[in-house]
Amino acid sequence: MFESLKLAHEIGEAEYEAEEPLLRGRLIDAQFDLLEAGDFPVIVLLSGMDVLGRSAAARQLQSWMDPRHIRPYAAVRPSEEERDRPRLWRFWRALPAKGRIGIFLNAWYDGPMRDYFLDRIDHGQFGARIDEIRRFEQLLAQEGALFLKAFFFLPKKRSIKGIKKLKKEGAAAWKLSEEEAELGKAFAKRYDHAVEILEELVSATSTAYAPWIPLASADPHYRDLTLGRTLADAICERLAGAAPKVPKSGTSTTISRAGPNLLDSLDLSKALTREDYKPRLKEAQRRLTALTLSRRFEDRALVAVFEGNDAAGKGGGIRRVVQALDPRMTRVIPIAAPSDEEQAQPYLWRFWRRIPPRGHVTLFDRSWYGRVLVERVEGFAAEDDWMRAYDEIRSFEAELADDGIVVVKFWLAIDKKEQLRRFKAREAIGYKRHKITEEDWRNRRKWRAYKQAVHDMVDRTSTAAAPWTLVEANDKYFARVKVLKTLADRLEAEL
Amino acid sequence: MFESLKLAHEIGEAEYEAEEPLLRGRLIDAQFDLLEAGDFPVIVLLSGMDVLGRSAAARQLQSWMDPRHIRPYAAVRPSEEERDRPRLWRFWRALPAKGRIGIFLNAWYDGPMRDYFLDRIDHGQFGARIDEIRRFEQLLAQEGALFLKAFFFLPKKRSIKGIKKLKKEGAAAWKLSEEEAELGKAFAKRYDHAVEILEELVSATSTAYAPWIPLASADPHYRDLTLGRTLADAICERLAGAAPKVPKSGTSTTISRAGPNLLDSLDLSKALTREDYKPRLKEAQRRLTALTLSRRFEDRALVAVFEGNDAAGKGGGIRRVVQALDPRMTRVIPIAAPSDEEQAQPYLWRFWRRIPPRGHVTLFDRSWYGRVLVERVEGFAAEDDWMRAYDEIRSFEAELADDGIVVVKFWLAIDKKEQLRRFKAREAIGYKRHKITEEDWRNRRKWRAYKQAVHDMVDRTSTAAAPWTLVEANDKYFARVKVLKTLADRLEAEL
Repeated sequence: MFESLKLAHEIGEAEYEAEEPLLRGRLIDAQFDLLEAGDFPVIVLLSGMDVLGRSAAARQLQSWMDPRHIRPYAAVRPSEEERDRPRLWRFWRALPAKGRIGIFLNAWYDGPMRDYFLDRIDHGQFGARIDEIRRFEQLLAQEGALFLKAFFFLPKKRSIKGIKKLKKEGAAAWKLSEEEAELGKAFAKRYDHAVEILEELVSATSTAYAPWIPLASADPHYRDLTLGRTLADAICERLAGAAPKVPKSGTSTTISRAGPNLLDSLDLSKALTREDYKPRLKEAQRRLTALTLSRRFEDRALVAVFEGNDAAGKGGGIRRVVQALDPRMTRVIPIAAPSDEEQAQPYLWRFWRRIPPRGHVTLFDRSWYGRVLVERVEGFAAEDDWMRAYDEIRSFEAELADDGIVVVKFWLAIDKKEQLRRFKAREAIGYKRHKITEEDWRNRRKWRAYKQAVHDMVDRTSTAAAPWTLVEANDKYFARVKVLKTLADRLEAEL
Repeated sequence: MFESLKLAHEIGEAEYEAEEPLLRGRLIDAQFDLLEAGDFPVIVLLSGMDVLGRSAAARQLQSWMDPRHIRPYAAVRPSEEERDRPRLWRFWRALPAKGRIGIFLNAWYDGPMRDYFLDRIDHGQFGARIDEIRRFEQLLAQEGALFLKAFFFLPKKRSIKGIKKLKKEGAAAWKLSEEEAELGKAFAKRYDHAVEILEELVSATSTAYAPWIPLASADPHYRDLTLGRTLADAICERLAGAAPKVPKSGTSTTISRAGPNLLDSLDLSKALTREDYKPRLKEAQRRLTALTLSRRFEDRALVAVFEGNDAAGKGGGIRRVVQALDPRMTRVIPIAAPSDEEQAQPYLWRFWRRIPPRGHVTLFDRSWYGRVLVERVEGFAAEDDWMRAYDEIRSFEAELADDGIVVVKFWLAIDKKEQLRRFKAREAIGYKRHKITEEDWRNRRKWRAYKQAVHDMVDRTSTAAAPWTLVEANDKYFARVKVLKTLADRLEAEL
């Protein structure tokens, strides 16, 4: 691979001296325009066998541009809080906001490369990790991110020398962990094998929207100028209105309105008497408490999603769950309008940042499903966007499950008559927080559209890893017991 | 202390059954109004010797109110990221936003209590920790926080039994760490000593704005109803317009315009030739690199603040510093308008969240001093607010220094003539990011006012722990070398 790179690529001192100041000007202007436009982030990812070279280049980019709007991120060992979360969490949290540039050293490519090289995962698992990366970059590209992935190439001899050098001064000069130095040694020993893996990784992740750019890094002048020019060009081109290279939307299937609606299959007349309710709720709560306090839960976590018609009783259900949990390991996240920090990120970012650490529980009152419910029905999201959301959500939840997080999703369903009754009742008395707003009435008028959206949502996002539970909620007692029992059953089965 | 508590406080089943639903309604309404008004946070802090009782009460409050707007925080062992930061960092990051309620179990009282009881700190240090707490709560109160600090009292026998019980089921039931269980044992053994310490802690931190409320917790009904009523009353009272109990502003001294201005003492003609500049900069950068990569720096950190006149060359200085640092341990934080998440918190919150972990460097381009500069001059902050900021900033920086963080602060000074020259030059050519805005001209017209503000700022916030360095910046070469040299010298002296 990259045969052409084995040819000499050099830039003389004179040319460099002449070029460098001009390039710097272009870069800073590009950076400023990017910030001013503020409508997409730039992700610079430096990888390849020239470890010293890619760090040096990162430094050079930083000192050329305005460091205040660059966010350097290197795959140093994850912190405890990061190790306690799914693999990609630490990269989500390091993403640059719109208008800013993030520089990543190997980052999400580090893990798969290392794990496969050290035989911690087999080739099948390696493939799965590659797919994870593809989905991640696809999502970011779809949200508008501009990618510049440079593959630093060095001839074998030079590159082995570099790694050795790394082991010597390197460790001090770049604060490499013992582990990293060890890995370097291993790479040098089985160099060709390492390159094979790297090449498979690179060719499998070179896409139209996030292509790998081979970069001959033997000559620092050539390396840095080429990288800088490529970055400046890419940013200017996009700002000049070049259409972003967006991957084809994952789902192309069109939503069919034919066939029965899942919600019609529910028997909303199911009910419990107060006498049956009390003991059953207590029992389910007791089980939930025991399960979440069990040693087995300590390296797992629970994410519960509460969606449902307005006035279906989400709040009441959540309260019954919270009663059974240790407040110190429980967070309830009400999803309202995104903050401006959240608006500057991909739409899943605000949910990623709330993912619980091991041994904890997070309850979402409304969730990432807003994308395919209210945003779809109200037209806040373009059809392509909410269409691809089905795929993105499936992989999001798969990543959580993959990390041992138990994902439980509830749709609390009431019928139109019952909703009217509750709206009226609330308008009469009831806690202020239950006030019925004009919006509630507006949503009610769109009952049919929401019903279709719910049907499609459940249809497309009910997976083995994260199944939907439809809750007959005309009767609050029945609904609450079903919610608690479902949580307990799922945990029991999973732990 | 709290003799009255030794009397029986009980509420019968019947009264409880009658009261409970009414109280719940009041609490939820209060909570909703609080959220709607959204202009102050509520901090509920539960402490005292009744460890089981205070957890149970926290749960009860949670299940009475809407858990979506409550943030429970218990002093469980700090995470790695928290241990890597100053003591109060973890509490700052757990603060409820305006309109929300935070429930804290012992929280910032835990450390001092434990450390003094276990003889890790002497009485003098214990006093210092108490002052730290007082300053912390004073700042929050000044920012409008409503405090409810309840001291859970149990008679000796019952309370020792409780702690023993804690050790038995407790450990399982409440996920107590071994350490906490051990501590409980120790408390039970030297109970009277523990109570003495607790009483000293409580009486020293009972202030008009954050008083301790003694609460007899032997009877759960009495305990929970009383706590709930007190909370509902406090919130309603404040919402009904009762003036918040605000501590007297720390600084009452008025700013004197008499006497010479510190800035006049600078010799702005200081300069370097390009020939002298290059080698000196390189040398200072080399020193800085070596120091920040040294083993000694690994459990320290560096915070550098860059303030100065517009066009004084902050950006250029910062770039020269960044060139000398490993990108992986460096963050540059440009301070612009606060995000809405930041606006919902005390003004220092947005800086606390940026404090570097051990072994890292954070450079602030503008900083918390905006409070006493632009906010003072433009009248964005009331006089009381920017006046007390001097004290708050001193203790903020003291807490950083106390944790081993080296704090370096630069004021880059140019004279009015030089500024005009640079403005003109930039208007002619120069990078877009340097565009001169109408605001720049406006600030320039307020030159005198800013000069006074800078004088007062340096005068009041230059401490041994965090001294100001005034940089003669009419000549960029001289300024950059002074900045780099100062950083290297400070680190050398501190490490």
